Amino acid sequence: MKIKNLHDLFVQELRDTYHAEKQLVKALPKMAKAATSDDLRTAFEDHLEETKNHVTRIEDVFGEIDQKATAKTCEAMKGLVTEGSEMIEETEEEARDAGLIAAAQKVEHYEIASYGCLVTWAKELGHENAANLLQETLDEEKAADEKLNSLALQSSNAEAR
Amino acid sequence: MKIKNLHDLFVQELRDTYHAEKQLVKALPKMAKAATSDDLRTAFEDHLEETKNHVTRIEDVFGEIDQKATAKTCEAMKGLVTEGSEMIEETEEEARDAGLIAAAQKVEHYEIASYGCLVTWAKELGHENAANLLQETLDEEKAADEKLNSLALQSSNAEAR
Repeated sequence: MKIKNLHDLFVQELRDTYHAEKQLVKALPKMAKAATSDDLRTAFEDHLEETKNHVTRIEDVFGEIDQKATAKTCEAMKGLVTEGSEMIEETEEEARDAGLIAAAQKVEHYEIASYGCLVTWAKELGHENAANLLQETLDEEKAADEKLNSLALQSSNAEAR
Repeated sequence: MKIKNLHDLFVQELRDTYHAEKQLVKALPKMAKAATSDDLRTAFEDHLEETKNHVTRIEDVFGEIDQKATAKTCEAMKGLVTEGSEMIEETEEEARDAGLIAAAQKVEHYEIASYGCLVTWAKELGHENAANLLQETLDEEKAADEKLNSLALQSSNAEAR
């Protein structure tokens, strides 16, 4: 698809982010299972539920702009998920949680950048309802990153020094 | 390499980030060439110079911890660079700059997450000089993201509506 204007760019980015969130729904249970601390496992499990909700919310955004929800392979999230899997395979227990948190924070930052663009573009295009839905997810991604920040300090202090 | 503790994790992340920065040194000139506005082209050119400096700074950090500077393939940055190339190929001129800015902001956010972890871990491990060097880069990545934010608003207002 040739991207001719901001509308096309918005739709393409929605498709990319839809695929990214779906990949994350598959990856998060593996990260939860690999976590050694109860707090981190619970954080991943909680974020899995949020992420399932983000998938539905993107479908709602597609509805708002009268487009069918379709996904486009998100190469960056593929790379991020691969790095998360490598982290699980390569770390021994002492370094596991710090490594998982790092991998997860990269994912969150990727999503913060994506939703930041989507919100800006939705507003520019006059899609107020879509912008509000996307802003809700953006706020949740930022909160997830903050939660990981606080767990990172606990984790590296307690275990992986 | 099996990652046994926070030191190993820090070294592995440095290698990953070293590779990521080197990939970016190759990608940024293509993004500068593809930009349609002078402001965006200049921003990419300026950030290329900063990025070359980030490569050297990581080499200095390896020196600080008495390790040889070696790179490990960064799968996430590979994906991010692929997305940037797709954006150049798929966008017509009207949507080009908004798309390039989005791709670049994802890169910046990836790096913000990486350097955020590296700074935290360097401090935990007592590598104060390394932490200061990494903090300098972190600050520059955040400034680059802010710069892109301001260009995004100009770009989408002016061209890609």
